[in-house]
This record gives sequence, structure tokens and C-alpha cells, in this order.
Amino acid sequence: MSGGKGTRFWPLSRERFPKQYLKLAGERSLLQDTLMRLGVIAKRGSVNIVTTEAQKDIVDWQAREVLSDFSTVVEPEGKNTAPAIALMAFKLFNKDKDALLLVLPSDHFIRDIPPFEAAVDRAARLAAKGRIVTFGITPTRPETGFGYIKAGRSLGDGSFNVTRFVEKPDIKTAKSYLKQGGFYWNSGMFLFRAKDMIDELKNYMPSTFNAFDAIRDSFNGKTEGKALKAAYASVDEESIDYGIMEKTKRVAMIKADFHWSDIGSWNALEEVVDADRDGNVSEGNVVSLGCKDSIFYTDNKLLGAVGISGMVVVNTTDATLIIPKGRVQEVKALVTELKLRGKEEYLAPRLEERPWGYFEVLDRGPSYQIKHIYLKPGARLSLQMHNHRSEHWIVVSGSATVTRGEETFFVHQNESTFIPATEKHRLENKGKIPLRIIEIQSGEYLGEDDIIRFDDVYGRKTR
Amino acid sequence: MSGGKGTRFWPLSRERFPKQYLKLAGERSLLQDTLMRLGVIAKRGSVNIVTTEAQKDIVDWQAREVLSDFSTVVEPEGKNTAPAIALMAFKLFNKDKDALLLVLPSDHFIRDIPPFEAAVDRAARLAAKGRIVTFGITPTRPETGFGYIKAGRSLGDGSFNVTRFVEKPDIKTAKSYLKQGGFYWNSGMFLFRAKDMIDELKNYMPSTFNAFDAIRDSFNGKTEGKALKAAYASVDEESIDYGIMEKTKRVAMIKADFHWSDIGSWNALEEVVDADRDGNVSEGNVVSLGCKDSIFYTDNKLLGAVGISGMVVVNTTDATLIIPKGRVQEVKALVTELKLRGKEEYLAPRLEERPWGYFEVLDRGPSYQIKHIYLKPGARLSLQMHNHRSEHWIVVSGSATVTRGEETFFVHQNESTFIPATEKHRLENKGKIPLRIIEIQSGEYLGEDDIIRFDDVYGRKTR
Repeated sequence: MSGGKGTRFWPLSRERFPKQYLKLAGERSLLQDTLMRLGVIAKRGSVNIVTTEAQKDIVDWQAREVLSDFSTVVEPEGKNTAPAIALMAFKLFNKDKDALLLVLPSDHFIRDIPPFEAAVDRAARLAAKGRIVTFGITPTRPETGFGYIKAGRSLGDGSFNVTRFVEKPDIKTAKSYLKQGGFYWNSGMFLFRAKDMIDELKNYMPSTFNAFDAIRDSFNGKTEGKALKAAYASVDEESIDYGIMEKTKRVAMIKADFHWSDIGSWNALEEVVDADRDGNVSEGNVVSLGCKDSIFYTDNKLLGAVGISGMVVVNTTDATLIIPKGRVQEVKALVTELKLRGKEEYLAPRLEERPWGYFEVLDRGPSYQIKHIYLKPGARLSLQMHNHRSEHWIVVSGSATVTRGEETFFVHQNESTFIPATEKHRLENKGKIPLRIIEIQSGEYLGEDDIIRFDDVYGRKTR
Repeated sequence: MSGGKGTRFWPLSRERFPKQYLKLAGERSLLQDTLMRLGVIAKRGSVNIVTTEAQKDIVDWQAREVLSDFSTVVEPEGKNTAPAIALMAFKLFNKDKDALLLVLPSDHFIRDIPPFEAAVDRAARLAAKGRIVTFGITPTRPETGFGYIKAGRSLGDGSFNVTRFVEKPDIKTAKSYLKQGGFYWNSGMFLFRAKDMIDELKNYMPSTFNAFDAIRDSFNGKTEGKALKAAYASVDEESIDYGIMEKTKRVAMIKADFHWSDIGSWNALEEVVDADRDGNVSEGNVVSLGCKDSIFYTDNKLLGAVGISGMVVVNTTDATLIIPKGRVQEVKALVTELKLRGKEEYLAPRLEERPWGYFEVLDRGPSYQIKHIYLKPGARLSLQMHNHRSEHWIVVSGSATVTRGEETFFVHQNESTFIPATEKHRLENKGKIPLRIIEIQSGEYLGEDDIIRFDDVYGRKTR
């Protein structure tokens, strides 16, 4: 499941670039890590990614970097987890009446794969007997940001019946759970047979069941998209936890004995990046003096910190955040405030990754925009056209192959070319080294959506 | 006196752009405010600015924006305040045996001019009787960053003999001074006759006296520059406070009854910008939630702060600072650290003001640099040439008049031109609206010093 909005990791995540696509530590995003885990585990199965139209392009190219075989399923609209899971249960049941579904959020961090794989194996054995299995995480702190599961009678091999689900508790209750024992964090990962989930949808979410049941025949066929649009109008906006898990009698819990984090806030950076001896986690161009227990994250911009303690400071090209560790949940409130005040920094990042490399907005004015465009060797942008903007391209390193109208030519380092509005064009790096271009766009409208693609090697929508 | 290095206001000030040139609040820099105060007061006198070669250009154009008549005096090297003051005493004595000197640091903030003018008038009357007058500020807090003056017998009209000078005290001592009364902050502003200062130099700083005495005849003449270079080799590197004020029997103090600040650290921003009801001072694109008693300064980059208290956060295009208010003096240590680690952000700002407008470095790579260049209407850059870099210019608003080699032509909005290395060129804005140009420099060496000026309307050094 890869959807949602990027609020809690602002300013690194944005509404148009949620946290599962961030490379917080290392070379791979959380989505890519999740897909690789699935790739290892689901060798005999298929990998399906449920997302939204707005995020389909990012999902596709991030997935393509780590898996050769996967499917992307686009929901007509986001309606929380229950409809997404119901959709996949119906779809996969159509192909295989005994299909087993392992449902994973795309934004979790799991350090070691073997114990996770072992837990999935145990869960699969229970699911094969008709149980809907959830993964319970042994709590390490009185976290109030998670729901809890009360384990009941042991089913052997680290699995349990479930006595009850508890919504996010207050701190006092959370502390008492830790003291009592037998309570686990609800991780949001599930394993079950498609047919069992469909049964329970019928029992507990009848309108959602009916909506999908009505379009059974169109699944995996040409009319699926249209049918889904109709179905989604009448499905309930609901989480699977509330809609099914808290009600079904089939639920069982596997005790997860692996390191797990939902990377729920900036504080979680401590779980993926090692701290120095003063307890500071620093990523990027950071110079700190006399600081402790703080989290510093910056891109190439210098971040200088002196004498601060217990703080989170995040620096990106266009926005900076500072907040005490104890209040990181309020980043969400800040993003809401930005939106209210019409600050565009809530929406899109300055540096946007693309399948062919990335671009970064260096400067914006009333009728111009300057971008730094980076093309990997061999990369090829779509053949495209803009209605409202013309573009100056200056090659600052590498060599560009430029198609403009009917002609194709090279532009070498320190040379430039000009693409008038409404002229079909394509930019390509046929070289062995990265191509860096400075693009100056000029026009009355400079939105990213002023683009008509005629042909795209990355499978994005063309005209 | 306008020299020094910009460490305490980093990252806004830089080694090449000290704080007196910053426009911290409003339209004028601290230097320009100081010059305007002098312009009001010294109607019958002359305004002389002592600076260094490295800062002469900035001084000249900032001064030219507020005064039509002034002189810039360049010291061969910075040797603290005593040589600068001695130099001016000798120079002005040469012109007028009874010359009165009012010495002002360029980086002080004084809100209201009339009480300041009145204090200067009182000081001038004392100086005419042979006294060397200092301005004592009534302390409002036990500040340990200033020297103190102990006032002695009253000389009437708010002036006093001086019992003693005290170097920067510890906090306990500073508190006792406030309690005792009769102690004043040493503001570093002075008023005296040139001849009296020369006498005292002879008494207390004989080698400095001798160095300048030896070149008396060259002052205000053609050989002054060369003579000064020789003299400065043997003058003492010393502050006027230690070298003269603490020793001379002629010293008197005027009690200054005007609002004064030396803008000694980021905390001083509270003295020039009004705080909101939570005690926050915010300049620029700031969104804060639940913060108090903090100072937020940012350029166009968004700064989001949640739940912080007693902090200073400063955001510029290329660097960010965070430090508690109680530790702002340590900014200096941070800048030293940056220098040690070879971080260029200590040296020059990304946005540099110039007499013709400003430029901002948008991006840098190994062999290219992108600048946004802003020319005021009517502005004209020097006729120049670069040995190592070529330049692409794209006009994004306004119209440019470009001289390239022997030709002169217009470049309109959304048009571009190319200046090869070693080609003489000039950029000019003959229009009525600002001219904005994106410049992409390309070459193996991109330093600002690769420039040969052939002709400059702003009086900067030409070949």
C-alpha cells in the first residue's frame, strides 16, 4: 500500500512526495526497501502495489529500480486502508481461489529480513487454516501513536488469539500496558486468504462488499478501471483495523521478533542512522558545536548548530524546520498552517526525482523558472511539448542529444539551445557520464502540468 | 571607522561582508545610518571613512547612496582602532590645526538623532578646552561584553572626569557595577581635537606617533599611500581604549542619554525590530507555532518553527544557524570551526550587493556557476573581461543593452546571448524597470577576481 500524504516528514516530504519515496538513509527509499523484502519473500507470488493516480509515476519508477516484475493498481480515490485491501482481495481471488495476501504498508523500516521472513512463514500457516493474521510488535516504550493488541490464548509457535484491539491510548494507559505485558503494537501488516477477507467484508462491511461484488466480472479485465470508479463511490472510507480486524472472530496475532519501525516522525531517524557519542544524528552538511540528543538533517546547504539539545532541525533547498523532539507530531499542524496561509512549500519539493534522474528548481520569478536538470547516462526524457513556456538549455557538463521539431543535434558543454513554446522536443543523454543542464523556462504559465507527452520510455501517460 | 570581519552575525554577515553593511531592519545599513547621523551633525565639517582595501568598494557605494560629499581613507592593513584614529588625527591636523574629530564606529545603532546631536555638542565644548571626550552609556543590564567607565567628579552639564576604565568584567562584577551606580558602558565613540590626540600619542604610543610623524609631509598628497604602507609596518596593533584612553589625564566622559546599541550579536535584533506578543522577533518568510522569546530571521526561504523558546534561528540561501540566545557569542567559535573545516560559507554571502544592484549565486558545480543578476534601472556594469570564464546571459525580465567586442545590441526578455572568455563586454539597463538576467558561467576558474575592468561608472579600480 503506497498512498497517503507527506506531512510528518515535512519539509523533506511534501504533499506530492510522501515519506515512502524518501531515501532517508542510504540508497533506497522506504518503498524500495519494502518491495525488496517482498521480492525476497514472495518469490512464488506476485507483487502488487496499490496507489493513487497522483503517485503512480513515482511508484512505477521507484519499483522498476528494484523489481523486474510487479503490478501497480491505481485506486480511483484514497478511502483509507479497507477499500484498498478489499480491492486486492477481490482481484486476487479472481485469479486464484486460495490466494494468500501479505499486506504491507510501504513506509515501514525493517532492518533484518530473515526473522521477518520467518514470521511471515508462521503467519502463512495460520492463514492457510482460515485465520486473518496480524503482526504484533513487542513494545519498547509507552508509545501513544500506535494502536495496541491484547494477546489472548497461545496458538503455539509465537502466535496468539487476540482478546481485543485498543485505539491509540493515552500515556498513562500506554505505560500500564507495558507494565502488564501481553500488549503488542498493531503494526498494520496483515496476512490472510483472499476468500476469508471477502467473507468478513460481507459480514462487517456489507456496502463495501456489495460495491466490489457488483463488479466481480470486470476485475483484471479491460473495464476494471471504469468499474472501480463506480464501485469507489459507494465503498466506505474506513481503516481495515476498525472495519474488520476489531470485529472478526478469525483474527490471530503473530509475535514479531524483528526490529521494526513505522518511521512515524523525524525522531525515527535515530532508528535508521547511528548517533554520535553526544546522541546527535547528523545527515548532510552539518557543523555542530556542543549539541546533544538532536537530529540534524540537511541537503548540500550548510547547517550550523551551537549548544542545542533535544531538537530536530531539517534544512532543504526551500524550507527549514525546527521543532523539539517532544513535539514532532505537531509538524502536521505546521503543514496545515502552511496550506492555510497559501505557502506552496507544503506541496512539492524543490528537488524532484524522476526515472531519468532529477530536477531542482533553483529560482522562480513571476514569469520565469530556473531548473538544474540531471540526466543519468542513457536516460531519455519523453518527446514532449509545452503550450505556454519556452525553454533555454545550457549544457554545463556532459553532452546532450536534442530533438527539436524535425531536427536532432548535439549540444556540448558550454553550448546552449532554445526550445520555443509549442515546439516538440526531447532531451537525451547518450553519453557515459551524467548530463547536467540549466534550463531557464519563460512564459506566463509554468506549471509542471503544461506538458504533452508523445512518447515515453518510462511508461508514463502519453497523448 | 568601517573595517573588521563579520563573524558575530554569521550566516548573514561573512568575512567579506561584515555586519555594518547589513540592512538588518529597513532600507539602510548600519554604516549608512551612521553616515546619515554624521551628515546631519557634521554640516560644517567633512565625513571621512577609514576602511581597508578589501571593503573600499562596498564603503564607497553604500556611502554614495546617502551622502554626496565624503572621503574614504584606506589603511594598508587593519591594526585595531588606535592606528586608524592616529592616522585621521594626523591627516586632519595637517589641514586644520584646530580640527575637532568625532570618531564613530560604523556598526552602532542609535534610534533618535536629536539627543545624540545634543550630546555631541556638549562633548565638543569640552574638547575645545583640550579634553579627550568619551561617550558613556547608562547600563541597562549587567553586560559582560563591554568595557565600563567609572565616572568621577562632575564637570557639569552631564559630563564627568573619569576615575578609571575597566576591561570587560565578569558577570558578578558587572552586577555589582549596576548596583553601585556611577559606572557606564564604554561606547567606543570619541570626540577630541586632532592636536590633543597627537600629543597623547607622543606620550603613550611613541612608536605609533613616530611612524606617522615621519610621514607628516606626505599626508593629503600624492605620496600618502606609499608613505602609509611604510608607516603601518611600525605602528602598534592596539585599541585606542588601551593605548590612550586608559592612560591619558585629559579624558572626560559625556553621559549619553540616547538609545544606543552596538548590535553586538543576533540578540540585538530585538533592539531594532519589534517583538510580537509572545516575544518573538520575526524577519522574512517565517511561520511559527507556539514559539516564544525567539529570534527568527530568514530570506525568501520558508522557516517553520514549532514549540521553541529562547532560540535564534537564521536562514540564508546557503547556510542556516541555530543557537540559544544565551550562547550567541559562540557564533564566533562556529565561524572559526567552519574556516578550519574549509567550509566556504564563512567567507562570502550568496547574495552580494553591488552599486548597480545585486547578484546571487543560485548553484555551483565543478566548472560552472549560475547567478541571478539584478540591475537597477539606469545601472551600468563596468566594461570588463574575464580570462577564464565564458558567460551565457538569458534575460528573464526587462531589456539589456549588451556590449560585446565592437558591437552593441539589445537583448530582450526571453532572449539570450553568449560572451566568450577574453571578450570585452558590458551589461547595461537603459530601461525604466529592473533588469533580471540569469548568467551561466562556465570555465576552469570562476573566482570573482577573474575580472579586468576597463571603465567603471562607480569608481572602482580599473586597469
